[in-house]
Amino acid sequence: MTTEPEAASLGRRLLSRLDQAATYSRPGAGVTRLYCSDEHQRLLPLLEAWMGRAGLEATLDAAGTLVGRCPRARAGEPTLILGSHQDSVIEGGKYDGMLGIALPLLALETLREQGIELPFGVEVVAFGDEEGVRFPSTLVGSRALAGTFDPAMLDGQDDDGISLRDALAGLGVDPSRIHELARDPDRVIGFVEVHIEQGPVLEHENLSVGVVTALTGIERHRIRVSGKAGHAGTTPMKGRHDALVGAAEMVVEIDRQLNALDAMVGVVGHLDVRPNAVNVIPSEVTFTLELRAPQRGTRHAARHQILTALESIATARGLQLAITPAYEAEGVECAPWLIESLEEACQACGQRPKRLFSGAGHDGLAMHDLTDIGMLFVRCRDGLSHHPDEAITADDAGMATRVIMAFLEGMEVAYQRN
Amino acid sequence: MTTEPEAASLGRRLLSRLDQAATYSRPGAGVTRLYCSDEHQRLLPLLEAWMGRAGLEATLDAAGTLVGRCPRARAGEPTLILGSHQDSVIEGGKYDGMLGIALPLLALETLREQGIELPFGVEVVAFGDEEGVRFPSTLVGSRALAGTFDPAMLDGQDDDGISLRDALAGLGVDPSRIHELARDPDRVIGFVEVHIEQGPVLEHENLSVGVVTALTGIERHRIRVSGKAGHAGTTPMKGRHDALVGAAEMVVEIDRQLNALDAMVGVVGHLDVRPNAVNVIPSEVTFTLELRAPQRGTRHAARHQILTALESIATARGLQLAITPAYEAEGVECAPWLIESLEEACQACGQRPKRLFSGAGHDGLAMHDLTDIGMLFVRCRDGLSHHPDEAITADDAGMATRVIMAFLEGMEVAYQRN
Repeated sequence: MTTEPEAASLGRRLLSRLDQAATYSRPGAGVTRLYCSDEHQRLLPLLEAWMGRAGLEATLDAAGTLVGRCPRARAGEPTLILGSHQDSVIEGGKYDGMLGIALPLLALETLREQGIELPFGVEVVAFGDEEGVRFPSTLVGSRALAGTFDPAMLDGQDDDGISLRDALAGLGVDPSRIHELARDPDRVIGFVEVHIEQGPVLEHENLSVGVVTALTGIERHRIRVSGKAGHAGTTPMKGRHDALVGAAEMVVEIDRQLNALDAMVGVVGHLDVRPNAVNVIPSEVTFTLELRAPQRGTRHAARHQILTALESIATARGLQLAITPAYEAEGVECAPWLIESLEEACQACGQRPKRLFSGAGHDGLAMHDLTDIGMLFVRCRDGLSHHPDEAITADDAGMATRVIMAFLEGMEVAYQRN
Repeated sequence: MTTEPEAASLGRRLLSRLDQAATYSRPGAGVTRLYCSDEHQRLLPLLEAWMGRAGLEATLDAAGTLVGRCPRARAGEPTLILGSHQDSVIEGGKYDGMLGIALPLLALETLREQGIELPFGVEVVAFGDEEGVRFPSTLVGSRALAGTFDPAMLDGQDDDGISLRDALAGLGVDPSRIHELARDPDRVIGFVEVHIEQGPVLEHENLSVGVVTALTGIERHRIRVSGKAGHAGTTPMKGRHDALVGAAEMVVEIDRQLNALDAMVGVVGHLDVRPNAVNVIPSEVTFTLELRAPQRGTRHAARHQILTALESIATARGLQLAITPAYEAEGVECAPWLIESLEEACQACGQRPKRLFSGAGHDGLAMHDLTDIGMLFVRCRDGLSHHPDEAITADDAGMATRVIMAFLEGMEVAYQRN
């Protein structure tokens, strides 16, 4: 280990940079910076300046990703890609995405200040779009690198009728050349993203950082419960077929089962009642069931157990049940060697390694098609994200920067061992 | 008892008349005949003809009520008022309302054919509006007789911007004279309405008719459950404050408690979720709680017990609960002497007397301010009402007609005893 600047001081520098980046926002609460927006365009020189200090040369690619490459990367040597996304949700926070750009740049700059030269290529990317807020598509920049970008996405329009194609042209890039961005897997070592946790696990465990083992798989179902409408005054309680009472029992049962399971989460987030009138017994309720687990088997077993329970409730109450699968995306695993390298880096910094899985999607879902992925989570206050009050501490920001520095140095050792 | 025509034959005549009345409907499924509509106007000659055969002279009053009076009634003798409403809901059935007009007219016609003259005044009313579908107000005709009509109701408009005032003028009456319709309570014996049950109690007990003890009181509450939104993928199950899970537990508990109580009903008919997104933990749920019981004390005790349970659920789940009373209307009791007279009439016709309460509102709610009220319910198929498939049998229609004839004859005996 080389001498490191005190973590809190590093952290303060990082938070100061993130405060600065947050000023590139549409007016209003928090940060609103959409893909190919004026704010996106105006932010780029700031990122380019940070890249320069880290020894990287910046170019804006055809997907609107600002790519900073060190000389070895430009020379075509095997390259580790770090980075995250520049865009936010509407009235989001300062850290979701931008932390994963600013942090590795500060880590590289600090290593450079310490005279450490990494014996492999390094690249930091600032993807344009991960949140999927403005256009129907998402992960455009990472799909482009992975070679999985579908050109039909370019026809997708925002609420003002502007196509992604025109928006990218407005940013000054040529979207017809996105297919040229696909990387050669043999020249990519891996992709590592730093991100706020967006959940409370690290806060509960009093840890600054955690190592991600997998990005969750997601499945969604649309469930319709049909009963029998009736006059709420003249129909006795006995013999009613109240679709809402049945659906309510199902919602409680789903929550009970999910609480009893490990390694997965789920929610009934959407529920509609028909006819939804104060004095009519509900005849139909539709609701969504979303289940997330990194392991497909875990998720499928839970789904089976939950849907079986729903059938029983419907039968017992004389209700009809219709279950329609609506969406399923498989999770992806982080590479064991990256998980271990990140854990070693935590230990080198005096941090107890903590593994956790990501319940949210990230650019890693696309990058996994190209290369091994790894993720480091940073504790955030109250697990809050997608909100103006999103917050991390300077200590945690500094510790996470040190962990990434140690991780990069560890990779150097690994390389030298080879 | 005088000799009666066979009930089924009477019933077939009654159903045939109701089929005829049902043709005065807006085109479409079932019966749609709104207050002061063209269909209302075109129906009046048919009702006037039935009234003529029953020995009643018809006049259309300033509230659009067709009033048929026998000579004693016209002479100012104490008068029993029978009747119901001519209007339907949108795509309603043939029997809700119209049964209570056609049946007493057929009963009076049959008594007249049998040479029986009642020693008191009789009047049959066909109120224009009880359903409250077209205008913001309802019970206009019965409130007018009770002297409780608020002239401000005349300014209420239908969806086409036509005021009740203009609609009544279009029917050919002078709404500025509604205040003259208030009856002298000393000259009214009571108000008796025949109505389909709109519920399944008589069907379950295999009875043609039942005697109503009270019209229900109603209270409604608006309940807001507030939790904490969160990313449904990144927030562990433990420690969530899911407003929908809490609200669902409340809906199940409300239903459980109401099923354990007698002599009242209730429903959660309306429920909205925020933000109602497939992948966000619900932060707020609002729902309505409607409770109906004829006895205020029963209703208030149930309300207390239910709301206490909801508070416990909210506390256990770390949710906030806000309960806002939204509506309360006291029930009204039917007069014991009318209940007993109707029961005696049932027995005279070989029917086991069955008391039940009305969970719906009726013109009796307004007429109760003027005079004693009584109601006879007639079994309807599957308890179905406000629907094109509303149905009663000829046997039940005939039996109910015989019961009303016996009731009128019993009143004769009572009068002669005096």
